Amino acid sequence: MNSAKPLILVANDDGITSIGIRTLIEIMKEIGEVVVVAPDSPQSAMGHAITIANTLRLDAVDLFKDVLAFECSGTPADCIKLAKHHVLKGRTPDLVVSGINHGSNSSISVLYSGTMSAAIEAAIEGIPAIGFSLCDYSHAADFSHISNFVKKITLEALKNGIPKGVALNVNFPKKQAEPIKGIKVCRQAAARWQEKFDERQDPFGRNYFWMTGFFVNDDKGDDTDEKALENNYVSIVPCQYDLTAHHSIALINKEWDL
Amino acid sequence: MNSAKPLILVANDDGITSIGIRTLIEIMKEIGEVVVVAPDSPQSAMGHAITIANTLRLDAVDLFKDVLAFECSGTPADCIKLAKHHVLKGRTPDLVVSGINHGSNSSISVLYSGTMSAAIEAAIEGIPAIGFSLCDYSHAADFSHISNFVKKITLEALKNGIPKGVALNVNFPKKQAEPIKGIKVCRQAAARWQEKFDERQDPFGRNYFWMTGFFVNDDKGDDTDEKALENNYVSIVPCQYDLTAHHSIALINKEWDL
Repeated sequence: MNSAKPLILVANDDGITSIGIRTLIEIMKEIGEVVVVAPDSPQSAMGHAITIANTLRLDAVDLFKDVLAFECSGTPADCIKLAKHHVLKGRTPDLVVSGINHGSNSSISVLYSGTMSAAIEAAIEGIPAIGFSLCDYSHAADFSHISNFVKKITLEALKNGIPKGVALNVNFPKKQAEPIKGIKVCRQAAARWQEKFDERQDPFGRNYFWMTGFFVNDDKGDDTDEKALENNYVSIVPCQYDLTAHHSIALINKEWDL
Repeated sequence: MNSAKPLILVANDDGITSIGIRTLIEIMKEIGEVVVVAPDSPQSAMGHAITIANTLRLDAVDLFKDVLAFECSGTPADCIKLAKHHVLKGRTPDLVVSGINHGSNSSISVLYSGTMSAAIEAAIEGIPAIGFSLCDYSHAADFSHISNFVKKITLEALKNGIPKGVALNVNFPKKQAEPIKGIKVCRQAAARWQEKFDERQDPFGRNYFWMTGFFVNDDKGDDTDEKALENNYVSIVPCQYDLTAHHSIALINKEWDL
């Protein structure tokens, strides 16, 4: 961190009007110079989608006091790309923060998460990045119990750096009667969503579906993000974007006839 | 593989009318019983997006001789979920194949790829899966030089299995004067896209952007997918979906004051 105020780029996936991003901006203003580029509409579960078959809009908005802010018609990953290459015009942020998401992005949800795609996109661009998510899907979620943790983790990231090519996936327990117990650095639990489809009929007699489902966690490890959250700890999973199953390379070379 | 014909589920991201999926279906019909669930419109670069804030449509289509086929309004990952939980009603496919994509999904493009999100979604569900992509973005791409390779890789996957939780990312070189030299099992190259934004003005005086860019590969390793493709080999990268940067856990625990 330079002696000057760090430049912090803020994005999210719930859209620029959400309480979560407003909360995050307020915390970041205490730490650095804040620039916001966030979607103009909710982009939850957009995964690492980018906009290549359509145009992108980017408009300045006057929503946050003393903060340069833009709303973008694209995905969270688009926001990072547009911020870096257009809004910041050559300045590289010291840190990208994304969120605070209204809802969990722990375990397998990291793959579907727009919040984390913004952070991972930043990591691909070589910028330290953190995605923050609260395990409370409510639009009116209470973020009051986590502000100090968001600030502490952000300051530690600026002080110590984040390993190159890594973005942190930080999840916070929903507000409970007891205060949060602490912070644990974890691995992604090997859990998944088990979908169910709710089939309905529209007023014109055609069928349609709503995707619903429940979370299945058969991973009983003590070192997972799910375990930490269950026990009222903040979970931090360092994430990278090399999907190679390295051990499988030798296996396939040995067993397959290619 | 059972003695009965294997059940093969086919998806893609270019949409159900693309030449790539038609080519893939014809090859799979020689191997097994084929069921198709594919997007009703192009879904390129959708990453691992899923549809949770909107409804999903699923309609039977009569496009492929002797093949049960459905078009879906959702993303490639949605197609797999709807296929498994609704279309196949309890039957589990022996294999999911996705593609053949019109365009490369090698290296970092795996993150943005709808083709690979279908394959990875299947892997999450415990189903062996392969995404096939041709390094030719043309709508009228020539797939004639790769059919035998698609068939060979599919048969090897059915014979030997694919490691649990792994999906194969298979990329084919664009047709060249020389025939393809062979197949290499690789790691994902540490390359990335360097975006540029083409700013224009609409007829109403408002600005908008097209995302463009070029591919930057500073990874000079001999064992990458990019290297294989450059040298006219088919690349196979086994992919998994645990994003944890495991080595960083100890590092953060040691260096950070949490």
